[in-house]
Amino acid sequence: MTTKDVGRTAKRGPYAKSEERRQTILDAAHAVFAARGYRGGSLQEVADRAGMSQTSLLHYFPSKRDLLMSVLERRDEITSGAFPDDMEEGLADSVIRTALHNEDIPGVIELYTVLCAESVTDEHPGRDYFTERYGRLRASYGRRFAELAAEGRLRPGVDPDQAATSLVALWDGLQTQWLLAPDQVDVAKGLRGYLNLVILPGTDPTG
Amino acid sequence: MTTKDVGRTAKRGPYAKSEERRQTILDAAHAVFAARGYRGGSLQEVADRAGMSQTSLLHYFPSKRDLLMSVLERRDEITSGAFPDDMEEGLADSVIRTALHNEDIPGVIELYTVLCAESVTDEHPGRDYFTERYGRLRASYGRRFAELAAEGRLRPGVDPDQAATSLVALWDGLQTQWLLAPDQVDVAKGLRGYLNLVILPGTDPTG
Repeated sequence: MTTKDVGRTAKRGPYAKSEERRQTILDAAHAVFAARGYRGGSLQEVADRAGMSQTSLLHYFPSKRDLLMSVLERRDEITSGAFPDDMEEGLADSVIRTALHNEDIPGVIELYTVLCAESVTDEHPGRDYFTERYGRLRASYGRRFAELAAEGRLRPGVDPDQAATSLVALWDGLQTQWLLAPDQVDVAKGLRGYLNLVILPGTDPTG
Repeated sequence: MTTKDVGRTAKRGPYAKSEERRQTILDAAHAVFAARGYRGGSLQEVADRAGMSQTSLLHYFPSKRDLLMSVLERRDEITSGAFPDDMEEGLADSVIRTALHNEDIPGVIELYTVLCAESVTDEHPGRDYFTERYGRLRASYGRRFAELAAEGRLRPGVDPDQAATSLVALWDGLQTQWLLAPDQVDVAKGLRGYLNLVILPGTDPTG
């Protein structure tokens, strides 16, 4: 700790300082992995960006793999803040709100898109994370679509589980096209279009 | 050329031999990039797999970037063989046939998924290729959906260009989930489900 830091960190103590450095490293790793992928991004690049030595960095995250897993976990925390699985809010509204929210967090869609596709490559440490994540998303959206079906609000012929898989797939694919051509592709509009196709308008229960 | 090769290549001459080596390198590069991505895969790995020195490899492809572009071009040749843009065949049938065809070519979906997402990263040589490819696909499917709309066969409220963007996005996203969980995700079924939603059954013109 330099003299310059004392005034700022003294009252928060060593734990706060340590946590602050962890966050600085995670920010740097997020930016490096989003820009170059996991394999293409080096620990040295992350350390440089965080303004510390690689040795200091390894004190917080013992390996590049640990760093990746922490970056992915933190990404979930950032984005899940927008998706509290609020049963009062309709599925379509909650999907659109999350999509718009994610577009506003710099680098979060790049990071996800790049690491997810990279995770299908040989022996990638993110593979289990993404496989489990997709399984969880399919199950969770599948339940929401099944509830809509029970209310008579899923278009006849649409299978709830298939709709869940397709919604997640469409979302991913739209994000990739949006990253390459943001002026030509509108993620929220594409998701809204699909949800309008499969979900029938609700009847007002008070009407 | 070794003595062993003479009998096999003599009648085809030096051009055929050179073309054969090019194809061997492209096969090797396809496998390496699909397994490790463009940034993660090295020229040395490609050379090892092709059974030649890196110097020999660079005689055929002067840079890693040239090799990537040739691998992507060849991928288009392999897959476009299944998609002759045959106007006699319905859009839905041709999409499903192509999806099933691609699943049967080892590594072709891995390669595409990995390189496409990697191309959104900084200064990636594949970026223009994928940006143009998506623009072309959106325009081409957009025309097919507009034709269906003109025949009264697009569901009312569905925009042809939006349907084109969504079809391509859905396809990409389903492939990613399929790569991670092939037992749980069926790409062709997902595409069929979407196409059944947006395309209305045709009336038999002879009926």
